[in-house]
Amino acid sequence: MADSASFVKPHFERVALIGLGLIGSSLCHAMRRADLATHIAGHARTAETRKVALEIGLVDTIHEDAASAVQDADLIIMCTPVGVCGEIARAIKPALKQGAIFSDVGSIKQALIRDVAPHIPDGVHFVPVHPIAGTEQSGPRSGFAELFTHRWCILTPLSDQKSDEYAEAVRLLTAFWQACGSMVECMDPKHHDLVLAITSHVPHLIAYNLVGTASDLETVTRSEVIKYSAAGFRDSTRLAASDPTMWRDVFLNNKDAVLEMLGRFTEDLSALQRAIRWGDGDALFDLFTRTRAVRRSIVEAGQETEEPDFGRRHKDLAPKEDSSD
Amino acid sequence: MADSASFVKPHFERVALIGLGLIGSSLCHAMRRADLATHIAGHARTAETRKVALEIGLVDTIHEDAASAVQDADLIIMCTPVGVCGEIARAIKPALKQGAIFSDVGSIKQALIRDVAPHIPDGVHFVPVHPIAGTEQSGPRSGFAELFTHRWCILTPLSDQKSDEYAEAVRLLTAFWQACGSMVECMDPKHHDLVLAITSHVPHLIAYNLVGTASDLETVTRSEVIKYSAAGFRDSTRLAASDPTMWRDVFLNNKDAVLEMLGRFTEDLSALQRAIRWGDGDALFDLFTRTRAVRRSIVEAGQETEEPDFGRRHKDLAPKEDSSD
Repeated sequence: MADSASFVKPHFERVALIGLGLIGSSLCHAMRRADLATHIAGHARTAETRKVALEIGLVDTIHEDAASAVQDADLIIMCTPVGVCGEIARAIKPALKQGAIFSDVGSIKQALIRDVAPHIPDGVHFVPVHPIAGTEQSGPRSGFAELFTHRWCILTPLSDQKSDEYAEAVRLLTAFWQACGSMVECMDPKHHDLVLAITSHVPHLIAYNLVGTASDLETVTRSEVIKYSAAGFRDSTRLAASDPTMWRDVFLNNKDAVLEMLGRFTEDLSALQRAIRWGDGDALFDLFTRTRAVRRSIVEAGQETEEPDFGRRHKDLAPKEDSSD
Repeated sequence: MADSASFVKPHFERVALIGLGLIGSSLCHAMRRADLATHIAGHARTAETRKVALEIGLVDTIHEDAASAVQDADLIIMCTPVGVCGEIARAIKPALKQGAIFSDVGSIKQALIRDVAPHIPDGVHFVPVHPIAGTEQSGPRSGFAELFTHRWCILTPLSDQKSDEYAEAVRLLTAFWQACGSMVECMDPKHHDLVLAITSHVPHLIAYNLVGTASDLETVTRSEVIKYSAAGFRDSTRLAASDPTMWRDVFLNNKDAVLEMLGRFTEDLSALQRAIRWGDGDALFDLFTRTRAVRRSIVEAGQETEEPDFGRRHKDLAPKEDSSD
């Protein structure tokens, strides 16, 4: 684990962000807040996003062409769906400055490294990163400086890079993410993809699937599903509202780990189905008790709040401790 | 649908609550707030809950014996897990007052009616109710008056009760729940169980299963799952922390509808699994786009907030609209 006690806040002359969606725009806010860059250069695919990014002051300069954005940049971060990162790396390769740090924010790492690494010139340090933070919002207006605060950020440095310069790049990038509020951890890319398959990819897939199933029933109408969603269904829909392009790329690029974890999930679900069919109340009760303990651990680890309903109730309707008077 | 425009706030001389967990204690707060009862009599199974209920003033009188709590009550509401309702009805039957309204808050209705209806004496009006509201908390201290505000409450009146007195009981109970803040709807018990299977029971089952699967892996440790839970897994754990006894009873008592909906879910999941295996990005993208629209409908229907992260972020870290200055 990176030693957070020893971190010295870094400052980059020029940072280039390729992609200004939720993560890219949040990074702009976080960098401004911590004064991590003198100049932020941005590139976005659509004219609309480029316009908004300038309008709300996310970036200092906006570039229609990704290669022009990365010119002279000391730190380049791709904040795009994983599927296009290889293509971007190929396109900007000639513009990369010697000694620059090249990074990303993708949710999967093995396929990304496979696609991107071949395009990285010697003397440019490619350090893959995955900040574990997000909301179901997207677009340049969805970002906020605190998105990464108290959230884990995983670095998966390349194992074949042994130089002191590369080690220094990893150290700088660690400090950069710490200055954005994150807790940084290093991990092997393969293990990263397995951990994320179960903590993120399969939960999203299941949420997407559940919403899909519920919308296609003949016996229950879609308007009934929506109306009575507070009964539990609602909780599953936040994940199922996440960006379709990003998530398509995740599943296409982390196929093996996702299919492995999904296999375990369906195996366990079959056992549960059987317990219901045969009325095995003890098996159900045992599982439900065990899962409650996991939830407590997540709250204790500071990755969730104890607040009932996640603060979903109207703010002016805060519960009273005691209304017995 | 009950006509909410015409509702006149009811007042009961004596209301008896059997069970003082999340729903029972919230009902106490809601009744006090709206002045719906002169006297609230409570019964709870454990001495600890009875002690707390008196201490924090939930009830006016507390009764070790359920039959003594319902004596002279005009309205009796069972707020216990569904599995024990039949037994409770049998036990309190001799103490029920003529003309009283007998109700419940159970998440399933067909099995409940099957278990309870035979014990209801002539001249007592049994009106099954399901308020669609909850948090993952339980116990007498978890209640708050606003739990039912802006939430749907489903009444499933018995189809074989045709008397004017029964119709009046349904009208009174409708007004009672409206005064607690709910929006009331009447529904056939069988359809209720089907609607809730997909909007509540299957989502809970899947959440329980996902947490179970994640805790039993060999390749990813439980502490890694907890640490990186903000990636999506966290969202699934709230439901999986719900009361084990209540949920065991739900699955045992709504077996047919749950198995039917679960069958659809696993069928759809297999198709999704195949799409991943064969790299069918278009199929994934189409589903993910469709589910996003369902989410928007839920937000528009007022059953969810648009707030990113459900207000999970630290309160002192509210996002700024524009931090570009």
